[in-house]
Amino acid sequence: MNAPTPSTHLAPAILQREVPDALLTTLKSRFAERCSTALVVREQHGRDESAFTTVPPPAAVVYALSTQEVAEVVTLASQYRVPVIPFGVGSSLEGHLLAVQGGISIDVSRMNQVLAINAEDLTVTVQPGVTRKQLNGAVKSTGLFFPIDPGADATLGGMSATRASGTNAVRYGTMRENVLALEVVTASGEVIRTGTRAKKSSAGYDLTRLMVGSEGTLGVITEVTVKLYPLPEAISAAVCSFPSIEAAVRTTIQIIQMGIPIARVELIDANTVRMVNAHSKLTLREEPQLLMEFHGSPASVKEQAETVQEIAAELGGNAFEWATTPEARTRLWTARHNAYFAAIQSKPGCRAISTDTCVPISRLADCLLDSVAEADASGLAYFLVGHVGDGNFHFGYLLDPNIPSERATAEQLNHALVTRALRLEGTCSGEHGVGLHKMDFLLSEAGSGAVAMMRTIKQALDPHNIMNPGKIFTL
Amino acid sequence: MNAPTPSTHLAPAILQREVPDALLTTLKSRFAERCSTALVVREQHGRDESAFTTVPPPAAVVYALSTQEVAEVVTLASQYRVPVIPFGVGSSLEGHLLAVQGGISIDVSRMNQVLAINAEDLTVTVQPGVTRKQLNGAVKSTGLFFPIDPGADATLGGMSATRASGTNAVRYGTMRENVLALEVVTASGEVIRTGTRAKKSSAGYDLTRLMVGSEGTLGVITEVTVKLYPLPEAISAAVCSFPSIEAAVRTTIQIIQMGIPIARVELIDANTVRMVNAHSKLTLREEPQLLMEFHGSPASVKEQAETVQEIAAELGGNAFEWATTPEARTRLWTARHNAYFAAIQSKPGCRAISTDTCVPISRLADCLLDSVAEADASGLAYFLVGHVGDGNFHFGYLLDPNIPSERATAEQLNHALVTRALRLEGTCSGEHGVGLHKMDFLLSEAGSGAVAMMRTIKQALDPHNIMNPGKIFTL
Repeated sequence: MNAPTPSTHLAPAILQREVPDALLTTLKSRFAERCSTALVVREQHGRDESAFTTVPPPAAVVYALSTQEVAEVVTLASQYRVPVIPFGVGSSLEGHLLAVQGGISIDVSRMNQVLAINAEDLTVTVQPGVTRKQLNGAVKSTGLFFPIDPGADATLGGMSATRASGTNAVRYGTMRENVLALEVVTASGEVIRTGTRAKKSSAGYDLTRLMVGSEGTLGVITEVTVKLYPLPEAISAAVCSFPSIEAAVRTTIQIIQMGIPIARVELIDANTVRMVNAHSKLTLREEPQLLMEFHGSPASVKEQAETVQEIAAELGGNAFEWATTPEARTRLWTARHNAYFAAIQSKPGCRAISTDTCVPISRLADCLLDSVAEADASGLAYFLVGHVGDGNFHFGYLLDPNIPSERATAEQLNHALVTRALRLEGTCSGEHGVGLHKMDFLLSEAGSGAVAMMRTIKQALDPHNIMNPGKIFTL
Repeated sequence: MNAPTPSTHLAPAILQREVPDALLTTLKSRFAERCSTALVVREQHGRDESAFTTVPPPAAVVYALSTQEVAEVVTLASQYRVPVIPFGVGSSLEGHLLAVQGGISIDVSRMNQVLAINAEDLTVTVQPGVTRKQLNGAVKSTGLFFPIDPGADATLGGMSATRASGTNAVRYGTMRENVLALEVVTASGEVIRTGTRAKKSSAGYDLTRLMVGSEGTLGVITEVTVKLYPLPEAISAAVCSFPSIEAAVRTTIQIIQMGIPIARVELIDANTVRMVNAHSKLTLREEPQLLMEFHGSPASVKEQAETVQEIAAELGGNAFEWATTPEARTRLWTARHNAYFAAIQSKPGCRAISTDTCVPISRLADCLLDSVAEADASGLAYFLVGHVGDGNFHFGYLLDPNIPSERATAEQLNHALVTRALRLEGTCSGEHGVGLHKMDFLLSEAGSGAVAMMRTIKQALDPHNIMNPGKIFTL
């Protein structure tokens, strides 16, 4: 492992490839009003939720309605050697959607049909533009649910492409564990299927897992089959405040080490509680908090909650405050998910740079506490939330885009944090992906040999480098 | 999906590449007595547990002691364009170890050190020659265990390479879900690491999952980091007999659809019960049986068992017979694992051809019952066992190698079974892999586009086609 160099948060050498008029003419004639070159549409598709966008937008946006249409666009793009960038709802965080080499944005948000609910098999197949909330609405009557919840109401295609996870992953796993099968348009415009609806398989290379997390660089995902789970018979949510972040983290570590199947265990620090209270009109104690949820039979939920309360009490935690009704639970988790917006509101005009390290659970206290100390010492405003049951947490450094030194400070803090996480055998990205912003960190984490292997795969499957080029690694 | 053509169970066009004397001389001088060209050693390394071996053995066997030594052998093999075939304990089932293009067998069974037990993180890192029983012995004092149990005391390297699973997968997942990180020697002899000890990551392509299940065709696995689990506070095992296979299967389907976290649920048919009773001196009722195990807190285990007993009773199942002591449990599962040997003993001189389909759980009854009817009608002796909670089951067709028509019948039955499984959205291989024997079936299942993508990846990462060539697909 080499020490990482600071990530630049900019595409280093932007090579805008030309998008020939002939291609644009063909696309417009084929897709009519579903091919837009309006600046406002292109700009909306040329950014994501990450802090800085200094790249020209894509030359056009095509709203595809079918796999066949995606294949047509990719085939044309391949003929003209023009990049294509798949777009869902634009909620990614690492610059994945920026047209750093120009090209065409393929918006799949209108491919939003739930294709097959197989309740008996606990699977569902959807088009890539279906969002997780839409999916859960569609399967509600079956008594099943889709647990992966990254906060944003992201699309299943986007969640697959970034290997997303979120608050429920501690119990239900990430997109890595929950995608069973995909349909993908490859760089040549061919449509392939990976995986089946069987729960397990040893039939050849795991192309499904290769596509999950490939960030649009190996193909456009046009269909996703994921696992569903029976809605728990009982759900309890609780909040517990602690005298220190350390006490909250040590409670989490013990919960995980004991194998308690907790469904969510989220940390927010005192400062973030203040922001959340102000934004969501809550009255949580302004101390470090664990937000927890337990799923199971009534007896099992009771048993889990009792054990966790004992652990928390031993480490100085206060009594649980229960969110007993579904409404109270929704309010609690909505507030948690809105921490980002609460933080942004707390410093008008600010932008947030979000970190995303994940470490083995035994290293979590070390990683988190040292990073909190550094952030506090820097004087920069920040929020702190974490899927701590997985060893994954996010600082959001709040900076004034007009003050370059704040950005430099944020970059330094993130650099120190990633370096620490890698030293502690962790990863630079728990769930946001690499995109533009973590390419150097990926190299430090995986080593040049493994990144070279990724590049080799990319070059073999996308010889003209048209699939979301310039992401994950330089080519 | 095209209708599969029968698999030949033979390497179709065996191209034995020459292994130059200069390479053998170099290997012998480097590895002395750890490089063997003795026929008996080569023959032992030129076969696996599959039924037919008609391929000449590898030219030499090198017993490697370290990653560095593996890298040296691969580097030399690369220079001479000679195949290398990794070897653990030889328990694979689809011809993975056969030297169909000649070459060198790299035996990693002496690389059997447990490198790091990280009990606090529920992870362990081992060399590839560590077997699953050895691993469980090594971690026993920590109160943790490694659940993946394919029956054979396979190595962790081999289990990773074939994406193995087995009886516990219904609750704990397969090697796909349980391998966190790998060290791999690539086709050029370079050593890379994939993954970290963090529980989740979105950092780049999922090379770990690409290597898991790649059957030695992309690299030699030289280190494996897997998840461990807390030993359940309570474990109960029970046997329940049913009036029909259908009743047993429908019970299983309901268990899974209700989301009961059963740890094992194994089907054996009446005929196999007879064989197992004779071989393991048991007195199980000679009816279709479900062998089950429940893990959890005492209350949770009790609750699971009660629910399952209710379901079974409704479908005509008899009262549970409990295996209450650890010894009784071990006896039960050993008997289950020995079903293969029990069956072989029941027909002296026979060989078994094992099927390995896996279907979505709602299709399990259809797939299984039609295939039982076909097997019964054929008159061929067989055994039937199944990890039915995952929709995965194995027929073992017992045939006299001297009677060609029996083999033809077995091939026809397997062909009909796979065709049925694929039509029911399943897979041709739940856990054994593709190897030599399922290449045609893989093509039917995945389609030519997906297999072409696998080939492209293989050619890019192994341009001289030296890593266990001739497996998974033809090149």
